[in-house]
Amino acid sequence: MDVRAVVMGAGSWGTATAKVLVDAGTDTVLWARRPELAETINSEHTNPDYLTGIALPEQLRASSDLAEVLPDADIVVCAVPSQSLRDNLTAWRPHLGSDATLVSLAKGIETHSLMRMSEVIAEVGEVPEDRIAVLTGPNLAREIAEGQPAATVIACRDEQRAQALQSAFNTGYFRPYTNTDVVGCEIGGAVKNVIALACGMASGVGFGQNTLATIITRGLAETIRLGVAVGAHIETLAGLAGIGDLVATCSSPLSRNRTFGARLGEGATMQQAQAATNGQVAEGVKSCTSVRALAARHEVSMPLTDAVHGVCHSGMSVADAVASLLGRTTKPEVYRD
Amino acid sequence: MDVRAVVMGAGSWGTATAKVLVDAGTDTVLWARRPELAETINSEHTNPDYLTGIALPEQLRASSDLAEVLPDADIVVCAVPSQSLRDNLTAWRPHLGSDATLVSLAKGIETHSLMRMSEVIAEVGEVPEDRIAVLTGPNLAREIAEGQPAATVIACRDEQRAQALQSAFNTGYFRPYTNTDVVGCEIGGAVKNVIALACGMASGVGFGQNTLATIITRGLAETIRLGVAVGAHIETLAGLAGIGDLVATCSSPLSRNRTFGARLGEGATMQQAQAATNGQVAEGVKSCTSVRALAARHEVSMPLTDAVHGVCHSGMSVADAVASLLGRTTKPEVYRD
Repeated sequence: MDVRAVVMGAGSWGTATAKVLVDAGTDTVLWARRPELAETINSEHTNPDYLTGIALPEQLRASSDLAEVLPDADIVVCAVPSQSLRDNLTAWRPHLGSDATLVSLAKGIETHSLMRMSEVIAEVGEVPEDRIAVLTGPNLAREIAEGQPAATVIACRDEQRAQALQSAFNTGYFRPYTNTDVVGCEIGGAVKNVIALACGMASGVGFGQNTLATIITRGLAETIRLGVAVGAHIETLAGLAGIGDLVATCSSPLSRNRTFGARLGEGATMQQAQAATNGQVAEGVKSCTSVRALAARHEVSMPLTDAVHGVCHSGMSVADAVASLLGRTTKPEVYRD
Repeated sequence: MDVRAVVMGAGSWGTATAKVLVDAGTDTVLWARRPELAETINSEHTNPDYLTGIALPEQLRASSDLAEVLPDADIVVCAVPSQSLRDNLTAWRPHLGSDATLVSLAKGIETHSLMRMSEVIAEVGEVPEDRIAVLTGPNLAREIAEGQPAATVIACRDEQRAQALQSAFNTGYFRPYTNTDVVGCEIGGAVKNVIALACGMASGVGFGQNTLATIITRGLAETIRLGVAVGAHIETLAGLAGIGDLVATCSSPLSRNRTFGARLGEGATMQQAQAATNGQVAEGVKSCTSVRALAARHEVSMPLTDAVHGVCHSGMSVADAVASLLGRTTKPEVYRD
């Protein structure tokens, strides 16, 4: 029997992921919260709100009806923002099939609970861990939607399930690698949005590639420190889900987090930066609070995250934050500094 | 007594390093092979051949006289290309002071001997290992010359000597961190030029950030494999001298290696790419041969380096090389693949 997938959430990454699944030959429905958007996708085969100019496959059907899309889905891709995943799952749960695999695309740590997304799925969806997977890597949505070649990581405690997902997502241009380190993939994904904000700030202030590379290096170091403290494998964070995703997000003008940080670096207030992104707040603005709290719980030092949090939530100036990122005392180069 | 430094080689990085030393308060002479260039630097306080538009400090004196600059130097910075270091050192040796510290800026592996630069210095200069240091990190010369903030690594087996160098190079904008892992620093520096060529090729063909991030990630993995095989510490390669230098070089349009690769990716022949860089061959074009041979000696798999070598020296098309970088079979994400 053919595998059926539903992508829950028609933002840019959800829509691009649905396109990948169709291109991989998987029977796929895209769920959009708003019926008007589902109708537009069905009639126009584009998503003008989030992926302007990208032609979607005609086989991709959209719907806003939970009871229609969820019960038959073998693969349920969770493509809603991290802080809204809990509420969404609560609504989805009555319709979930009993053996469905839930795949998280959300990158963040829940603010009030400090839970990773797979933990939220396990708790709210009442799904055992071996049915929960994470898809992550250097995957800027627009480049994927354009069919540019990219590699990704699909992590699941159950390796066979990861391999089944690998087949469902595998196309000529999108190549998934399997991993069993769900924790490492989630920590890499959550922290990189925070580091991308720091890179954006430095870039907005006018600093060049040396500074960006230094911030990325130190960002990786603090990601690894946090990851190891919560049980991640260092190899995962040295791979596509860690350094790969970090470099793509920190280098690209397509990254919302980097762009948001750059506006702050250029002198915009939080309100102005938010207004310039159609009222959307970059994921890292919320994540820096929960990542910082998780680090405190595990007594891990994360100076970059502290600085980003200072700018976003404690009135620290970008100039002071960038100076604190760079103006540290000379000492041996070590991980735990 | 004040520390005296001489920078041997007035290319862009040698000149920028001499400026850093002067700005750090160190008494510094810049040696240029050509007397005309030394005269221009002394009279105009610029280096029009290699650092157009940068004002050099008036205290920076240039000379082309080995017997004048070398005997009194406590710090001898070797800033000549890696493949010419042996011949240069042979000429310098009779003039070297008996307790001078030799600092290598050259990033490469000697083609015929497969020696690292510190090994060449030890052999040809007849200098014990504890007087040899390596300076490396995310340090694009022009950005440093402009006074942009950057971090760097100074590695020496003798930690006290590394700390003395740290003082000699430390300025408000240039911050050295010490390390004792000379091997790791040299492997990171040599391989990153090869990976930057691969990134350039992919970029020249038209691929975006996802692809670059994937190449950087896999490039780091093969750098770590080689490094570990020859005795480097993984922490060094996860730090400024590894991932830091790699990201800066691979991301920047200022990188000669990336630019050279991009020309190949856009369809230029090796000859055309070389002509476009005033006849200069990018360091990675030579290094890929020696890095590949060193990997073979240690039975380490380096598919990116193989592909770059194929394009530069075996007539492989860039399209085939890029496909081989990306079109690998789906499998678990592991280091040793």
